[in-house]
Amino acid sequence: MESILSYLAAGEERFVGELLAYASIPGVSAQSQHAADLRTSADWIAQRCRAAGLETVVHETKTNPIVVAKTPAHDPKKPTFLVYGHYDVQPAEPFDLWTSPPFHPRRDGRNVFARGISDNKGQHLAHLIAAEAWLKSGTPLPCNLTFLIEGEEEVGSKALYEFLPQHARELACDAVVISDNGIPSLKHPALTYALRGIAAFEIRLDGPSRDLHSGIYGGSLENPAMALCQLLAQMRDKKGRIAVPGFYDDVVKLSAYERKQLARVPYNEAKYRKFLGVPELFGEVGFTADEQRSARPTFEINGLTSGYQGEGSKTIIPAWATAKITLRLVPDQEPKKIIAAVKKHLQSLCPPSVRITIKHGHGGEPYLVDPTGPLAQGALRALKAGFGHEPVLLREGGSIPIVSAFKKHLKAETLLLGMALPDDNPHSPNEKFSLDAFAAGMRTSALLWPQLATA
Amino acid sequence: MESILSYLAAGEERFVGELLAYASIPGVSAQSQHAADLRTSADWIAQRCRAAGLETVVHETKTNPIVVAKTPAHDPKKPTFLVYGHYDVQPAEPFDLWTSPPFHPRRDGRNVFARGISDNKGQHLAHLIAAEAWLKSGTPLPCNLTFLIEGEEEVGSKALYEFLPQHARELACDAVVISDNGIPSLKHPALTYALRGIAAFEIRLDGPSRDLHSGIYGGSLENPAMALCQLLAQMRDKKGRIAVPGFYDDVVKLSAYERKQLARVPYNEAKYRKFLGVPELFGEVGFTADEQRSARPTFEINGLTSGYQGEGSKTIIPAWATAKITLRLVPDQEPKKIIAAVKKHLQSLCPPSVRITIKHGHGGEPYLVDPTGPLAQGALRALKAGFGHEPVLLREGGSIPIVSAFKKHLKAETLLLGMALPDDNPHSPNEKFSLDAFAAGMRTSALLWPQLATA
Repeated sequence: MESILSYLAAGEERFVGELLAYASIPGVSAQSQHAADLRTSADWIAQRCRAAGLETVVHETKTNPIVVAKTPAHDPKKPTFLVYGHYDVQPAEPFDLWTSPPFHPRRDGRNVFARGISDNKGQHLAHLIAAEAWLKSGTPLPCNLTFLIEGEEEVGSKALYEFLPQHARELACDAVVISDNGIPSLKHPALTYALRGIAAFEIRLDGPSRDLHSGIYGGSLENPAMALCQLLAQMRDKKGRIAVPGFYDDVVKLSAYERKQLARVPYNEAKYRKFLGVPELFGEVGFTADEQRSARPTFEINGLTSGYQGEGSKTIIPAWATAKITLRLVPDQEPKKIIAAVKKHLQSLCPPSVRITIKHGHGGEPYLVDPTGPLAQGALRALKAGFGHEPVLLREGGSIPIVSAFKKHLKAETLLLGMALPDDNPHSPNEKFSLDAFAAGMRTSALLWPQLATA
Repeated sequence: MESILSYLAAGEERFVGELLAYASIPGVSAQSQHAADLRTSADWIAQRCRAAGLETVVHETKTNPIVVAKTPAHDPKKPTFLVYGHYDVQPAEPFDLWTSPPFHPRRDGRNVFARGISDNKGQHLAHLIAAEAWLKSGTPLPCNLTFLIEGEEEVGSKALYEFLPQHARELACDAVVISDNGIPSLKHPALTYALRGIAAFEIRLDGPSRDLHSGIYGGSLENPAMALCQLLAQMRDKKGRIAVPGFYDDVVKLSAYERKQLARVPYNEAKYRKFLGVPELFGEVGFTADEQRSARPTFEINGLTSGYQGEGSKTIIPAWATAKITLRLVPDQEPKKIIAAVKKHLQSLCPPSVRITIKHGHGGEPYLVDPTGPLAQGALRALKAGFGHEPVLLREGGSIPIVSAFKKHLKAETLLLGMALPDDNPHSPNEKFSLDAFAAGMRTSALLWPQLATA
């Protein structure tokens, strides 16, 4: 292991330079004008895989390419592990809140700032470099490795969901490793044993056939913006619970053991409130903030649009109003079932004075794995050695829907070994990645393979 | 009168051409990029006043100029009437819903389409041309006329409110005539005896200091978009009444006589619903649609903005959410008092998990005048002769806040003689003006001055 860890330590400046180059490609999968940038991103990471010594194929899809890279000559007698990551990034808007341009990565001490650098470029690049360290140092890997890097994670991984069953044999593995999530601090590396699922949709209410003068007509017809507010307002009660019939039916209760483990994660309410920048916290009554954001389902409005949004005022009744919504789901809520219940409830509450349209977006199932199994235990040992601190056990509030697909198509459990810190601002302006996390992540990854191979 | 009416009939094509030229100037007062266009609009109408034979002054203000034009050599022994209009127009957004570009006027039979052509360019131009007819035909006018054309009506007439008291002597008059409103049809010309007032404001709720990942943090803090929906939802009850304590305290009840007069206005629910394009009407229980939209106060959301509005989805908790609001007020509600009550109520209902900011916009008092007085009776006679049909008595749902200022500073009542038809789409895409209304409006204006002078 010595030579491998030395390789990682010695090459750090080069690896950071590569990270900055990778993060400078604006591969925003939600915005069609970035199609070429997504292609560039795929080519970049494929080239990097080849340079690491991996046998690399860029698979074309109907949308963005999928990169598959393998250590040479897979030995069927050794176990195989698959590392998953995504080269696409979230939109960077609003641009004016960025301290430096989102796709001109900026280094500031031990932090590097850029859209997508933490979510997810830095994290899968760390695994790739660790594999390179094994290969370049000439030490035989105790396992086979497959890297699977896709370009649509931020918009629902449509191509990958088609690709997985078709390439199940090529991607066969004993376990999947994903680093696309967070840890409480560099002193609290973590194994994440549960994820929330997601269900996205858009509500549109149509009222009059055009914007109308609010003086001439106002009072005699429904205002779609008001109807939308009154409809959405009924989706959550005063205790922070989602007021949709049947919504909590399949929610698995948190056990006393889990609540105790979650309570080990360092938490300071004043600090957390200050970090978020809110005057007061708000969440479902009866749960801690860490439980609320990782183990309880939510109904979030991601965007509201209606009527006049320019300078000054415009005295209209808007013709329509829309809301972008995502639900976060927890085990064992099923996205399809929940969406149907929410849709039915919205339709039943919608007044007859407007027309409602509900457009489905992507969905992803929640995930839960037993943290006491041998693979998880091996990962905990690698984390402890890589970060130099005792790891904690976490539930994650974010969604990595592909985890359920790996279980379904590859029959493989997933180990979630995050490298993102709480202030990394993924999906927000000024996203950053810690170079200390990058280094610890590379070490953990290098140390992980012997642990998993002998587990 | 013969020669005057002949002058109007003979010149119609020229007058329509002038109307199209005037309507091609994009004088949008709400948008700062149109400052030069507002100047061009003021210069155009001033030049047109001079061409009509009026003594014309373009008064500079801190913002948009005010045009004052008088018939030559005002005779102190004759009564003086003031015609008010505005050369500024509403924003034309959303552009894609216009059949032809909003500032490239298009003639289609007896209709002309352009932003601001009905509200208000066509209507005050009709009065100006009628005055020209008197002056060019050599018939001595039985009264003095003053035209007052401003450029900020759509954003609250700030400059005019300063200008009026400073120029009260120059603008002294026995009555004001305004055509900036509507009539039910060409067969139902109307004298409008009441107007709704207005109070505009913006609500902003601030939550986290930046957009946050809805997976990582969602559930542990308030979503400002949801808080805004829940706040606004409480502003109106299921019966369509505004749920603000004290909101109806000063509302003057509709008399049985008024309700009877309003019921004379032709109304067909199915037609009205189809015209609006709504599946069902909605309004305050216990009132007809015409009463709801002219004699009852409202709380309208003119715009909602929060979070991600682009293509696809973005899984965030937005940092803030805003709503643009206008209240329509009725006699004797006072804008300041009502705004204070609404503001207090909003603040009392706002949860402590977000910060609320309420920014005041423009306000205007509601108006009510006795329709049985001599000036009103004279106007009804001119309407009958000008349109060739028995006029109706109306309340208007729109706001012309300057009417209250004329009463205050010039001690003059206002006669409201609209020329806009119900399908003119003011403030909406595809605004238009009827050339028949234009011609009838010119005739009514020409016939009006002898009626008012002898009243």
